[in-house]
Amino acid sequence: MTTPSIPKTQTAAIVHKQGGPVEFDHEYPVQEPGQDEILVKVLYTGVCQSDLHTKAGTATGPDGEPITNIKLPHVGGHEGVGRVVAFGPGVVEREDLKLDTLVGIRFASRVCHECEYCKSGREQHCGNATNHLHHEDGSFQEYCVLDTKYLTTLPQDIDPIVIGPTLCAGVTAYKAVGNANLKQGEWLAVIGAGGGLGHFAVQYGLALGAQVLGIDAGAEKQKFVESLGARFLDFTKCKDLADEVRRITGGAHAVVITSGHPRAFDNVGGMVRTGGSLCMVGIPPGDVKLDISVATIIIRGLKIQGNLVGSLKETLEAVELVRNGKVKPHVQVRPFSELPQVYEMLEKGDVPGRIVLKL
Amino acid sequence: MTTPSIPKTQTAAIVHKQGGPVEFDHEYPVQEPGQDEILVKVLYTGVCQSDLHTKAGTATGPDGEPITNIKLPHVGGHEGVGRVVAFGPGVVEREDLKLDTLVGIRFASRVCHECEYCKSGREQHCGNATNHLHHEDGSFQEYCVLDTKYLTTLPQDIDPIVIGPTLCAGVTAYKAVGNANLKQGEWLAVIGAGGGLGHFAVQYGLALGAQVLGIDAGAEKQKFVESLGARFLDFTKCKDLADEVRRITGGAHAVVITSGHPRAFDNVGGMVRTGGSLCMVGIPPGDVKLDISVATIIIRGLKIQGNLVGSLKETLEAVELVRNGKVKPHVQVRPFSELPQVYEMLEKGDVPGRIVLKL
Amino acid sequence: MTTPSIPKTQTAAIVHKQGGPVEFDHEYPVQEPGQDEILVKVLYTGVCQSDLHTKAGTATGPDGEPITNIKLPHVGGHEGVGRVVAFGPGVVEREDLKLDTLVGIRFASRVCHECEYCKSGREQHCGNATNHLHHEDGSFQEYCVLDTKYLTTLPQDIDPIVIGPTLCAGVTAYKAVGNANLKQGEWLAVIGAGGGLGHFAVQYGLALGAQVLGIDAGAEKQKFVESLGARFLDFTKCKDLADEVRRITGGAHAVVITSGHPRAFDNVGGMVRTGGSLCMVGIPPGDVKLDISVATIIIRGLKIQGNLVGSLKETLEAVELVRNGKVKPHVQVRPFSELPQVYEMLEKGDVPGRIVLKL
Amino acid sequence: MTTPSIPKTQTAAIVHKQGGPVEFDHEYPVQEPGQDEILVKVLYTGVCQSDLHTKAGTATGPDGEPITNIKLPHVGGHEGVGRVVAFGPGVVEREDLKLDTLVGIRFASRVCHECEYCKSGREQHCGNATNHLHHEDGSFQEYCVLDTKYLTTLPQDIDPIVIGPTLCAGVTAYKAVGNANLKQGEWLAVIGAGGGLGHFAVQYGLALGAQVLGIDAGAEKQKFVESLGARFLDFTKCKDLADEVRRITGGAHAVVITSGHPRAFDNVGGMVRTGGSLCMVGIPPGDVKLDISVATIIIRGLKIQGNLVGSLKETLEAVELVRNGKVKPHVQVRPFSELPQVYEMLEKGDVPGRIVLKL
Repeated sequence: MTTPSIPKTQTAAIVHKQGGPVEFDHEYPVQEPGQDEILVKVLYTGVCQSDLHTKAGTATGPDGEPITNIKLPHVGGHEGVGRVVAFGPGVVEREDLKLDTLVGIRFASRVCHECEYCKSGREQHCGNATNHLHHEDGSFQEYCVLDTKYLTTLPQDIDPIVIGPTLCAGVTAYKAVGNANLKQGEWLAVIGAGGGLGHFAVQYGLALGAQVLGIDAGAEKQKFVESLGARFLDFTKCKDLADEVRRITGGAHAVVITSGHPRAFDNVGGMVRTGGSLCMVGIPPGDVKLDISVATIIIRGLKIQGNLVGSLKETLEAVELVRNGKVKPHVQVRPFSELPQVYEMLEKGDVPGRIVLKL
Repeated sequence: MTTPSIPKTQTAAIVHKQGGPVEFDHEYPVQEPGQDEILVKVLYTGVCQSDLHTKAGTATGPDGEPITNIKLPHVGGHEGVGRVVAFGPGVVEREDLKLDTLVGIRFASRVCHECEYCKSGREQHCGNATNHLHHEDGSFQEYCVLDTKYLTTLPQDIDPIVIGPTLCAGVTAYKAVGNANLKQGEWLAVIGAGGGLGHFAVQYGLALGAQVLGIDAGAEKQKFVESLGARFLDFTKCKDLADEVRRITGGAHAVVITSGHPRAFDNVGGMVRTGGSLCMVGIPPGDVKLDISVATIIIRGLKIQGNLVGSLKETLEAVELVRNGKVKPHVQVRPFSELPQVYEMLEKGDVPGRIVLKL
Repeated sequence: MTTPSIPKTQTAAIVHKQGGPVEFDHEYPVQEPGQDEILVKVLYTGVCQSDLHTKAGTATGPDGEPITNIKLPHVGGHEGVGRVVAFGPGVVEREDLKLDTLVGIRFASRVCHECEYCKSGREQHCGNATNHLHHEDGSFQEYCVLDTKYLTTLPQDIDPIVIGPTLCAGVTAYKAVGNANLKQGEWLAVIGAGGGLGHFAVQYGLALGAQVLGIDAGAEKQKFVESLGARFLDFTKCKDLADEVRRITGGAHAVVITSGHPRAFDNVGGMVRTGGSLCMVGIPPGDVKLDISVATIIIRGLKIQGNLVGSLKETLEAVELVRNGKVKPHVQVRPFSELPQVYEMLEKGDVPGRIVLKL
Repeated sequence: MTTPSIPKTQTAAIVHKQGGPVEFDHEYPVQEPGQDEILVKVLYTGVCQSDLHTKAGTATGPDGEPITNIKLPHVGGHEGVGRVVAFGPGVVEREDLKLDTLVGIRFASRVCHECEYCKSGREQHCGNATNHLHHEDGSFQEYCVLDTKYLTTLPQDIDPIVIGPTLCAGVTAYKAVGNANLKQGEWLAVIGAGGGLGHFAVQYGLALGAQVLGIDAGAEKQKFVESLGARFLDFTKCKDLADEVRRITGGAHAVVITSGHPRAFDNVGGMVRTGGSLCMVGIPPGDVKLDISVATIIIRGLKIQGNLVGSLKETLEAVELVRNGKVKPHVQVRPFSELPQVYEMLEKGDVPGRIVLKL
């Protein structure tokens, strides 16, 4: 079932070949929603570093191997927000799923509901999952098909402009902070505090009751991080960063590392308190290892944990903290047509905050 | 208050100077129990690798720095079991603390009860704690003074011969397995399964409901590990150990590394399942790092945790599993007088299981 | 797709009208597996008290209201075990789902995978679920259709005779014990220890490390409960049952109430230790309330929790403890044709242990 | 050691005999701090309902039995804040314990550090504990002795006026909300939302991420509760309160009952969602039972939990949320001399919010 007003073709940002340019195809077909699927009109979409890596062909898997067998032509985008415009067969209107309902387009597009990860609320690790980066067209198009069996139904009263980055960078930071299991008033240090992931981690930390020390470089970042309610350390001005962190916090109860820069992992063990946590979400290139000796991890009883995004349930928890105003994503809006320029900026690394495209 | 039958002097194994020999002093003074203290007649004591390191002067702290300011003369021993023979001032007999009550002599001798670690059941990290290795005379003497404010009261029906090693190696393994938070039937791989720590980890894993794959070398270790109820892999016979672990377990839900051999940390990331845990308790010499890239930890959502012993409460939980027969420490008993020879064996690394001295 | 060897009709135990008799229809149609479904040949099935209530029309909901809109004719049975004999459209053979794979037939038959309960591993509370008691034909027939999107794939090496009751009574007891979150060696008191639910609770308690005190009546029950490894109290011989429980346990850390007899709830508050748990799984008739004052619950910091069965994941955890021999369901096998007599026995209440029918 | 400036006598509000009046003794001796004790100059103190009950002789224990063997003369007060003015023998000045350090005077005065509760961070249940209500003089005097082994060291930058009630009513509400283990955006209903306990529960619920529905009566309470950020229901205006709660929340994920009025427990089961929690902290007089059938608790998988105050660690967590401004205790300050009048107001039940006395 497709309502008459839905066009057969649309504008999509497509990549014909990894390593090639991103191009706009104004005659890209609008997919018809199948069994248990809906069609969504995309309103806004964030742009993630992993979109760039996939376009460029530099994406790597957990063991550093290149990720191949990408669907081509490739249509990226997995920080999207849209409204339901059509139901596929088998989808019945209900209170929380009608025409015009606001929904999210996330990294994971489908999961199997049957494996050990799906059955334990960790379906982001489902080995049978598909996603909007490698297997299905994402939010860099006007109309996107979604599976109602794994649908990100958003609170209907949120601001659609800021919520996209929350669905990827936001939940990633939320889960990293949550993994630290901080008690009220404990100290969280965030490395890369002024960045896309980092500014989320700072705010989730504060919202969950931690005292936060943001670590980054430069006066602009300092101003930004302090405006969020955190203390700030400019690592370029510290003789011994770990010493400074310990002086302020007595040793952080948790350190969240949101930067992927290899230097971001220098002596993080010296910043964390005995019994504390190191939570890593910024992926460094190549084969960067953690700079802590096994003896330190054992004797000081440290916990080290990594995570990439989170489950649908965790995503909605992260969204709720944006909805109720405790976390304010910092975004700048650009027109969809500027995606190529945004990719260039990401390549140069000079994107302040998170960019959101308006479709 | 000291009852008449308690001698003024005793036999103790003392070290006058780190790096020097361990010697028996048959006129070593018996300490009088002070305020809130008791005197205990030692029955049995295990010998821990850290006793050897402290004697030899090769003990190092969390950051590899040598541990100095050891109390001299040094009397080691922190896997001891004894019976109460005298009460100090302020100690009142009660149901669970009488003359003859069976108590343990553990690594930690006193804690402050006031710091964040003491207040949260993690007092093994108390920064104000003293221990029976660096600050107070331990169980390598006939009579030992203990603080009733931090007393390890044992179940009175246990076998005193086997319980000593449980108080140190046992609880260390118990907590490592516990940190993995395994569900019934999940797979635990234990590296160094036939050793002192390892044979405890295998048994605690089975007792807590895991399926266990023990990894070690040689036919004797294989026979021993299989007799505990685990499957066995001889790493010297595997072309690719991680591959073999994955073939049997589908990727272990947790890997406990009880060996301190640097090779024990090779490709442990390849053995563990996505979302799984690496629990480390065997301290490698020097500055050995974990052989896993940050990207792997993040993308595969791994948790890495270290621990050294555990809290008093956790120790008693570990003891309970020995008491009810689910875990059987493998010990061989030697007379106290053979401590020097035992140290020599430990130095050569050819101690099968755990040695317990009878005082 | 139905393989040639599957007959079109079969024998089923059907109820035409609640309150009427259960009858055997030897020409009852075999249902064809639909999209994402499989057909299973039933081997064994337990008989649950709730089957009897549904047949008799005495089943009530959470607030005591009668449960109506039962599918008629009604085919009960939700403690079943069978083997896959046919795949419906869309089902692809895979490692853990082939012809002949051993699977379970549980209470819940389908869940929505989308609601807050499904997304948090508590899908037994899914409001959109269907079950094998009220909505779909269960295991009281030779062939049963199951949804592969919510399939209970069993370990292939278990004994199919004993596993049926584990899927309902077993997991109910397992979860009740788990809710108490007992530490090694803590005391669990089980009220109704010799019954179907109770003998599971005793064994799960022991397997999870508790010391168990079983409470029931009579020499036969005593012998049975003691043979499981628990201590026993005959409540008919206690002047003050709570006093006796406290004398033995010092106050139980948890009390699991598996009996639905109203007297089973007498002074349970007096049996439990400050800070302890009361876990209830035996449903009393009518409007029986808990016999504890609010003041007691508050001042003594008690936790009271109810549960009916558990999630699929919890069920498989409960099954694992049967598979590895730590829990041994006590069943007696009867031919399928004796279902009417079994119902009569259940009505009279004189079923020792759990009865399993062989189809 | 007592510094010269500390007088030998002071003003204290004393009760010579339970049931008799509270009187001011201006020559009450100042206690000297003993071993490991400090002397504190009291600045402010809250007045708790339990002070009134103890004065009046109407205090009852967990089973409704009268509490006797109160220390006489009785000096109440256990929501106090003061500054250190003298050290007893054995107390050494340190960073967090100097002259002038701000500390709290809570209900529990000493704990044993040795029992199962002390060893597991639940020392509020310590059976060997003493408290400032039954055993030791509390904060209704100018100078109070405290045990440094169980000291409530406060953040030094907090407002001493508001923190007293946080140490008793505040932590009680904080722990009740914490017991519910709410996820971001889940619904918390607070019965008695405008009262002393209730206004804390509302704010802790919001601070921890819940959506809060406050239930109380009257326009003044409505204005107050709404000003805290919660929705409000006036139970005097609801035809069916549970229906209304369900209409707004879809069934609360947790209900915290802060009122001790017997009617406060009417049909709370109808307000809570399947799988949800009932957290009780308001103690009703006599033998009030919970108005929920056992069948409902089981079938709907409810959790019911009571708590009285919390541990020292939990208290400091509750304090932190006041320190960082997320929770604002609503207090009115009166001079110490008005304690008798405050007792009269409490007896009549017309105290709006919490009263704090300035010493």
